[in-house]
Formats: sequence, structure tokens, C-alpha cells
Amino acid sequence: MSMTLQTKKMHELYEECKRIGISETSDVIEEAQSAEEAEFFAKAFDIILQQKQKNVVAEKRF
Amino acid sequence: MSMTLQTKKMHELYEECKRIGISETSDVIEEAQSAEEAEFFAKAFDIILQQKQKNVVAEKRF
Repeated sequence: MSMTLQTKKMHELYEECKRIGISETSDVIEEAQSAEEAEFFAKAFDIILQQKQKNVVAEKRF
Repeated sequence: MSMTLQTKKMHELYEECKRIGISETSDVIEEAQSAEEAEFFAKAFDIILQQKQKNVVAEKRF
């Protein structure tokens, strides 16, 4: 299945989001251009953090 | 304040998300490269949808 241009862009940006370290997220949120953008950044980082934590738990195989 | 490269990328992600119409989100989610990416896309679109709806309600000034 070929990806649309929109999906390609979203894929790139998702990868970028994952590369941003937890310690850097506050700085990025502070630099947001509006309150709505700041909210979006905070929630997006939260989703990524949750996914990373889920993987850590899965790797421990409790 | 000058934006870091990371913030620029996040700003692009936010703008791209806002550009994608509600009717197109299913296609983008289907084209995701992994279950985690699909989850991220779905949640990101949901945040944008909530913000747009909030603005519609605010404009009505109930």
C-alpha cells in the first residue's frame, strides 16, 4: 500500500516526536506559539511517554 | 525567543494535523507503519478535533 503525502508527513513528525527526550519536552512546550499548540505538544509527548513506558513494562515481562 | 529545531518540527506536526480533514483521518490511520503509530495518529487527531469543537462552542457563546 502506498502512503499518501499526508501520511508520510505524519510519519516523519511522529518519528521526530519520539526523538525528543523527556528532559527537553518542557522547553518545546514553552516555545509553543499559542495555548492550544502548547496543549497539543503536552498531550502528544504524553502519548509518546506512555508508549515508551508500556514497552519498558512489556520488556520486563512481569 | 528563537525556536529550536525540535519546536519547529513539532509546530509543523501540529499544523499538518490541523490541515488533515476529519474525513481523511481514517485513511492516514490505516496507513500507519505500526500499531503504536496508528494509536498516536488517532489520539493526535482526537486532540485537534476536541480543540476545533471547543472553538465552535466558544463562538456560539452559550
